[in-house]
Amino acid sequence: MADTVMSLLAEIADVGTDAQRGGYSRPVWSSAELDLRSWFVEHAERRGLDVETDRNGIVWAWNAPGGERSGAIVTGSHLDSVPGGGAYDGPLGVASALVAFDRLEERGATGERPLAIAVFPEEEGSRYGLACLGSQLLTGKVSPDRALALKDAQGTTYADGCRKAGLNPEHIGPDPEALARIDTFIELHVEQGRGLVHLDRPVAVASSILGHGRWRITIDGEGNHAGATLMGDRRDPMVVAGKVVVAVQTYARETPEARATIGRLVPTPGGTNVIASRVDLWLDVRHPDDTVVRALVERIAGAAQQLSAGEGCSATVVEESYSSTVDFDTALRDDLARVLGQAPVLGTGAGHDAGVLKEHVRTAMLFVRNPTGVSHSPEEQVEDSDAEAGADALADGLEFLLRT
Amino acid sequence: MADTVMSLLAEIADVGTDAQRGGYSRPVWSSAELDLRSWFVEHAERRGLDVETDRNGIVWAWNAPGGERSGAIVTGSHLDSVPGGGAYDGPLGVASALVAFDRLEERGATGERPLAIAVFPEEEGSRYGLACLGSQLLTGKVSPDRALALKDAQGTTYADGCRKAGLNPEHIGPDPEALARIDTFIELHVEQGRGLVHLDRPVAVASSILGHGRWRITIDGEGNHAGATLMGDRRDPMVVAGKVVVAVQTYARETPEARATIGRLVPTPGGTNVIASRVDLWLDVRHPDDTVVRALVERIAGAAQQLSAGEGCSATVVEESYSSTVDFDTALRDDLARVLGQAPVLGTGAGHDAGVLKEHVRTAMLFVRNPTGVSHSPEEQVEDSDAEAGADALADGLEFLLRT
Repeated sequence: MADTVMSLLAEIADVGTDAQRGGYSRPVWSSAELDLRSWFVEHAERRGLDVETDRNGIVWAWNAPGGERSGAIVTGSHLDSVPGGGAYDGPLGVASALVAFDRLEERGATGERPLAIAVFPEEEGSRYGLACLGSQLLTGKVSPDRALALKDAQGTTYADGCRKAGLNPEHIGPDPEALARIDTFIELHVEQGRGLVHLDRPVAVASSILGHGRWRITIDGEGNHAGATLMGDRRDPMVVAGKVVVAVQTYARETPEARATIGRLVPTPGGTNVIASRVDLWLDVRHPDDTVVRALVERIAGAAQQLSAGEGCSATVVEESYSSTVDFDTALRDDLARVLGQAPVLGTGAGHDAGVLKEHVRTAMLFVRNPTGVSHSPEEQVEDSDAEAGADALADGLEFLLRT
Repeated sequence: MADTVMSLLAEIADVGTDAQRGGYSRPVWSSAELDLRSWFVEHAERRGLDVETDRNGIVWAWNAPGGERSGAIVTGSHLDSVPGGGAYDGPLGVASALVAFDRLEERGATGERPLAIAVFPEEEGSRYGLACLGSQLLTGKVSPDRALALKDAQGTTYADGCRKAGLNPEHIGPDPEALARIDTFIELHVEQGRGLVHLDRPVAVASSILGHGRWRITIDGEGNHAGATLMGDRRDPMVVAGKVVVAVQTYARETPEARATIGRLVPTPGGTNVIASRVDLWLDVRHPDDTVVRALVERIAGAAQQLSAGEGCSATVVEESYSSTVDFDTALRDDLARVLGQAPVLGTGAGHDAGVLKEHVRTAMLFVRNPTGVSHSPEEQVEDSDAEAGADALADGLEFLLRT
């Protein structure tokens, strides 16, 4: 029996399940994510692809006629997940790439031009806090020094994680040769929204990725006993944090097209009978116009300062990452939409490795319909027939690229 | 050289330090807390005291003339801490008990009546969420079934913790015999407030412990992608949580003498680029009048429901523990104040094992001055001379009890 996208995903349905949160927790370099990489390598080798893991931990599975790897058409995605994420964000693109390769073989389209399937590490940034870390290292957008020093919630550095995964931390960093081999990168991804539901179509071509960034807001107050400290004697950073969360929603609602979120909040020390001494909040802001993102973050930072002062606390805001709005190659976008039977063209608020690679190579994305529109959650969904339609669309797109 | 309170505490200054939070993290059954117990046992045995650990993990160090243990005068405290707590909350009472015993020996006051020093586990409730768990098990206030099923943040049960500490989980529970041996319990504790600073005195006798409890507020919403989900399409429980935190402060300020705190807040899944699907908040409320506590919690619970509805979320509020206001034995309180040179009498907002034992035996507490007034924080402080004055006062109080 030939593999289907859903039969492939069924094989990994038990890997990295999260009983507490529901869904999957597959952080980069965890045993779950490493198991998924092995699973991918096995399927790639079964197809006769030549697998290499580069110095940044990106897995490349090559079909290189005549040993030639330059001018390659590359597809792929990632296998790591957010905590308690869905089954499709990442793995759908990897499984679809394998099935698309099978289609291309059937059509005899793989004999001429090099083709590779790539799997990127830490796309979500859910372990070390920096999204698309693999592609950012490959392209030199993030320095090796900064990446190696990143720490997860347990205090383990990215360097430690790399070692655990069998990489040499001294060798990570920009890889212009690997990058130069890519002519075009095309990533298939589950849609993170209900655009295709409204359009009643299974597959779309991406127009752009919203500019987005992460900021860490730290509110410092005074830790004290929850029972012995009078309300009037407190400098409670949790109260400030609560007000900041509300301000973030208010300001984002006042800014058309903006999205701003506090999804992570950590009080220190975090005891029930202790007034916190510090609260860290992580702010995620996105908007098509970078100047609007900047203005919104500035407004939130100002509110954090002012609200802190009102409670005898102080606030600092540090930018952890920022990516400008990415418009994918318009000629390629239009070609793909035509090849895919006038597929609709949709933007997205989510970041992707394709957005990072866009600055260096011709890049496109395909989205597959998600009935719930929900993502980064176990509620994320894809219908069987849409998954296969997605793989077919990816095969059509790749064939178009391989033959032109 | 004879031990002083501060020389004893200096011996354990390196145990369970918390580099991340500052201060000490010595959760019950952790290696740090077990080390402190061994340290206590060593000092007790060095004084010729007969040490037993009962089936609830309470350590008793006995001076029992003629082997008689009934009608005992008991002092002691605890060695566990909140996360990032101070050096004195708990250990000051244990070290002072050892030094007070030395004083009593010097004064020849230990030859007649049984005396014991007790060390209670999980006084803070910072690991398993239920404060004074050792004394609550001893007195039967908490059932063994409930205690054994409690889980820490890693999902380890209290039963697992007990096993790690060498206890048999099947044997924990009410111990009327152990309880019946106690005639009077007197606990010395660092003051958690600045009452003694204002009075310019080193030691006070306790009048009462404020009624207090813990409630878990769970806000359920819809997890989703932080970038792809429009502000208007969200059901974000973090926004509700922020508003609840603010409401808690507002309502507590409107209620004279009340203290209400959110010190712990956990979003699920807790990723930066994920709208939370659920947020758990823990509410700590205290007031001298139980009906006021109840009314305040009801008001907060009502607000949580209403604020949730406004964001398309839902809220549940579960009581995790509740202790009514405890007035210590007034005759004993007045005797101690007199014996200690008209020591001032002060109430406290903090819970203690003495408050649990109060329902079964004659109980008193002494407080030692804390210059910062801060507790449950590395800022907690005790001057050397006050620590020794505290041990002297404890010795005076115990001598008075042993001789009457």
